[in-house]
Amino acid sequence: MKIGIFGTGVVGQTIAGALEGKGHEVMIGTRDPAATQARAAEANARGKTFPDWHREHPAVKLGTFADAARFGEVVVNATSGNGALPALEGAGADALGEKILLDISNPLDFSKGFPPTLTVCNTDSLAEQLQRAYPRVRLVKTLNTTTAALMVNPAAIGGGDHTMFVAGNDAEAKAKVNGWLGEWFGWRDVIDLGDVSNARGLEMLLPLWVRLYGAQGSPMFNFKIVR
Amino acid sequence: MKIGIFGTGVVGQTIAGALEGKGHEVMIGTRDPAATQARAAEANARGKTFPDWHREHPAVKLGTFADAARFGEVVVNATSGNGALPALEGAGADALGEKILLDISNPLDFSKGFPPTLTVCNTDSLAEQLQRAYPRVRLVKTLNTTTAALMVNPAAIGGGDHTMFVAGNDAEAKAKVNGWLGEWFGWRDVIDLGDVSNARGLEMLLPLWVRLYGAQGSPMFNFKIVR
Repeated sequence: MKIGIFGTGVVGQTIAGALEGKGHEVMIGTRDPAATQARAAEANARGKTFPDWHREHPAVKLGTFADAARFGEVVVNATSGNGALPALEGAGADALGEKILLDISNPLDFSKGFPPTLTVCNTDSLAEQLQRAYPRVRLVKTLNTTTAALMVNPAAIGGGDHTMFVAGNDAEAKAKVNGWLGEWFGWRDVIDLGDVSNARGLEMLLPLWVRLYGAQGSPMFNFKIVR
Repeated sequence: MKIGIFGTGVVGQTIAGALEGKGHEVMIGTRDPAATQARAAEANARGKTFPDWHREHPAVKLGTFADAARFGEVVVNATSGNGALPALEGAGADALGEKILLDISNPLDFSKGFPPTLTVCNTDSLAEQLQRAYPRVRLVKTLNTTTAALMVNPAAIGGGDHTMFVAGNDAEAKAKVNGWLGEWFGWRDVIDLGDVSNARGLEMLLPLWVRLYGAQGSPMFNFKIVR
């Protein structure tokens, strides 16, 4: 399957590497591919520079946001919260069309340090902002509630016995994403919360997530809905 | 042990009944005990009227907020979000003293229907508002992230293998509450998130909780932190 991914950070790298490993054709989109490729000296805060990572994954293509959106049968938004709307603007409504967009981004505001607050919450969400700006896109909020390493490998903790969520307006898109989460990464318990407004609850989980990260001293944990 | 409980609704009734059943002396506090006792015809939205419930639990005392605060070696705030500050004001700083206050309340705003939004979140929390108003009280935020029936009986689902949280400024108070959660109700996995500002993450879990309630069709679920 051809998959376009927005974002060259840890989440984009991790998703791209996992999908490439499963035999998918992957293109990562960025604002300025030449600048991204030249980023040799700037270490990513939590991972590898893109050029270092890319040398280990040469089959992954790099292009603009528009290139990646056109390339993908499905598109994954793995940008930061601040980067999400600019990424979709960079791609443009024509390239995005009516494609399914997995939105992993979280509206975190680190401008006042750690723990971050949210730039939008309670009566709106980043996912809703993106869906309103690009109403034809079939956005599915998912994977934003756990760390990158677990997004692509839930079996790394608790035998994979924990929970992922989807929220979005298009039932067919959510059903496809639910299937892909299982096929691509091994997610077995995926709860469909309902329409895109349910992304509020998923994004508002982040304030607890960052505090649990502090309390546990590790990001290798996830929420299981016991019922 | 003598325990004062603020709130005559489902949460207050459930906590009071469970503690009475364990042999504790319990007094429920309310704004106007005579009015509460006369509430024969008004059915509580989710449970029994207080007089109907009280006939089944005659050993539980009923008094004012101040009576319950003075009675309890420890105080439990089981009011609604809107009722929390008025309950503490009704009790008064003298009666509350430096007692440990388990705060279960959630700042839910149902004025625009279901699902509710939060009246405070992101950069503040109801627990912090209460702690600022009554700085001597040793507030511990806990039990607000699950339904009343599971607060007092986690074993009702998944063999009790799921998670409860505490947040508050006083380490000794949190250690005591952690012990009581086990002794009173059987909680085995209690995570200490840190100071009272961590109540933000716990209260911001509610928007996901109410949506999960809708998606599951039942409130009998809880979060487990798999790690």
